[in-house]
Amino acid sequence: MSVTSPTRPAPAGLFTSGDPVRSWTVSTAKPIRYQVDFTPGVLSPDNPALATAGTPPGPATSRRLVVVESRVNELYGARIRAYAEANRLDVTVHVLPAHERLKTMESVFGVARAMDRFGIDRRREPVIAVGGGVLLDVVGLACSLYRRSTPYVRVPTTLIGLVDAGVGAKTGVNFGPHKNRLGTYHPAEATLLDPAFLATLDRRHVANGMAEILKIGLVKDRRLFDLLDRHGERLLAERFAGSGPGEEVLARAVHGMLQELQPNLWEHRLERVVDYGHSFSPTLEMRALPELLHGEAVALDMALTTVVAWRRGLVDASRRDQVLDLMTRLGLPVWHPLCEPGVLAEALADTVRHRDGRQRLPLPVGIGGAVFVDDLTQREIDRAARLLGAHQRRLAAARGARHA
Amino acid sequence: MSVTSPTRPAPAGLFTSGDPVRSWTVSTAKPIRYQVDFTPGVLSPDNPALATAGTPPGPATSRRLVVVESRVNELYGARIRAYAEANRLDVTVHVLPAHERLKTMESVFGVARAMDRFGIDRRREPVIAVGGGVLLDVVGLACSLYRRSTPYVRVPTTLIGLVDAGVGAKTGVNFGPHKNRLGTYHPAEATLLDPAFLATLDRRHVANGMAEILKIGLVKDRRLFDLLDRHGERLLAERFAGSGPGEEVLARAVHGMLQELQPNLWEHRLERVVDYGHSFSPTLEMRALPELLHGEAVALDMALTTVVAWRRGLVDASRRDQVLDLMTRLGLPVWHPLCEPGVLAEALADTVRHRDGRQRLPLPVGIGGAVFVDDLTQREIDRAARLLGAHQRRLAAARGARHA
Repeated sequence: MSVTSPTRPAPAGLFTSGDPVRSWTVSTAKPIRYQVDFTPGVLSPDNPALATAGTPPGPATSRRLVVVESRVNELYGARIRAYAEANRLDVTVHVLPAHERLKTMESVFGVARAMDRFGIDRRREPVIAVGGGVLLDVVGLACSLYRRSTPYVRVPTTLIGLVDAGVGAKTGVNFGPHKNRLGTYHPAEATLLDPAFLATLDRRHVANGMAEILKIGLVKDRRLFDLLDRHGERLLAERFAGSGPGEEVLARAVHGMLQELQPNLWEHRLERVVDYGHSFSPTLEMRALPELLHGEAVALDMALTTVVAWRRGLVDASRRDQVLDLMTRLGLPVWHPLCEPGVLAEALADTVRHRDGRQRLPLPVGIGGAVFVDDLTQREIDRAARLLGAHQRRLAAARGARHA
Repeated sequence: MSVTSPTRPAPAGLFTSGDPVRSWTVSTAKPIRYQVDFTPGVLSPDNPALATAGTPPGPATSRRLVVVESRVNELYGARIRAYAEANRLDVTVHVLPAHERLKTMESVFGVARAMDRFGIDRRREPVIAVGGGVLLDVVGLACSLYRRSTPYVRVPTTLIGLVDAGVGAKTGVNFGPHKNRLGTYHPAEATLLDPAFLATLDRRHVANGMAEILKIGLVKDRRLFDLLDRHGERLLAERFAGSGPGEEVLARAVHGMLQELQPNLWEHRLERVVDYGHSFSPTLEMRALPELLHGEAVALDMALTTVVAWRRGLVDASRRDQVLDLMTRLGLPVWHPLCEPGVLAEALADTVRHRDGRQRLPLPVGIGGAVFVDDLTQREIDRAARLLGAHQRRLAAARGARHA
């Protein structure tokens, strides 16, 4: 018998034939709907967006728990409090230090305890998360687990938060040696994107986010790649200030991500072009902790797979050089000592388990396209890594010559 | 702009008007489908059900991680291993002690580490959980979090597991002073119900499960209540052995639960008749730890709200006495020293937060019906508790007189 209808047959009737039901199929679907909006001036006292974000229809409460990353609190804490006062929000601020090494269940528990102390309502008081990718992932997981789902609102303050962590449905923390091994799918009710936060971000963290933008350009948006190629260094230096190409670059990156996520939010399909750059990088990033930022590990992976794609004839030599050159100009690494056979083999093995027994490895096709392969060999990987090592030494020598 | 279609418009086209998209609504639905089956002889070597449960279409792997509760392992470990051998399953057994005090994230981490050591595939190697409600909830949460969802199969070994914890979608652990405060909705792909496990369950734990069956009878299935009233004591003594009323009682209890869960699996509607007995009991259970079992705390709550319903004219006096008498005959408590104004007020306050600012308190209407109220007063609760305290003293005195 299938329990598929929301109507209720009188239970007695189901048993009058004398033979009770002994098998049930529960079949239903969970509706998900969330909002991602560019919201310039999100902390301007006269902008109501943040004060109303994520609240259900009906009488609103004015209480909010705001979880803010420590450094963001130093820079923007006073403005957040002033915003709350101007909008008559009764705000409790929980400050949470967040970086890759603190991306742990302990941090999640800290947020859950803050929700406990706050005495949060089940659905009318969305938690507001203000910070970068790690903070958003940690708060998202805490909200997902607390009462099996509490609504929240994301305000990303880093580039990687704006174009990646703040846009999708995934939450997560690292566990043991594994990147994001524990987590859930629990998108924020609303994400408010304000690029003005980038003004206070250091150059390396802007480059970190550039890697995820470059990813979208490489595998699905040729114009985005071209924009980065032409304006990337200036955007990096100017922190995407002003309108012009910066605005389009951010919008295209977000749009590309959401186009891929929307039809496959729970990854029922394991061939995901947004996994480009994420086949070897989880292991590289975790092994190098805290040396490599997430986007830097992604860049190493993209450099490696660009060379593999070139050797397979999927990308020509001039495109390969253009990609590697752009990465370098954007302040991203193309090789690292961890790119050696043992680590790369281990990384691929873990990814194969993660992709259910197959590589499903996205490789770029030219610029703006991708293909999935299952037959990457250890020899191909090692050769690509060796070529990149040599490339890196030539770059270093050239830099040395210039500085001599 | 709404990203609602799985087709991919060429991204370039979206920006040719010069004005990039700046607002996105992601709207989708996550399909859920799971199976609950009575499976007598689930550990009989010639029954293929367990060996194939929860595997996706396509080539199966024969590797399985089996998480077994310690006591269940003592009683059934050898049979589980013999089953695996007969069915050519390459099984790794992880033994997990489980009781309410071990219903913690630490226990979840233990399962996650076992999954790590096992090197589990993402979707082809369902974890098999064998145990009572606590074990099923802990393993369910571990599987939910590991890679953001790993399939699993439930084999409940207690009565509460058979009719409650094994049937729904909820996972969870206790956190701080709160019952099941952290958790997810992640049903097992398949649950295999074999009442034969009840043969080795002690009387008190059978009574514990009776409380959840009685709940379904009280608020939605009059015939189930009558069956318990007539045969409950015998079923308790005989551990539901054989066919006859035991089979129908179990089937009706599962059916009633699934009828309620199916249209409201994620509790979008907070008025849930299956929450009957679960308004005051979470706090009572946690405060009394480890004294009260879950079903015992639920019985206290049902006794209290039965008396409240009687005072409101929803249940007549003879029905009230019939209910209290049946609880006593089933070995369930109707009053406890913790049923005092301070604790009950705190319990209701926490439940109101959990039900988003309203009581939404189910009260029985006669037997087999329910109504939700928002206006329960502290005075009503306290008076009901005092009446039950006096009832309890009379029962104790009568027992004393009999034994004198």
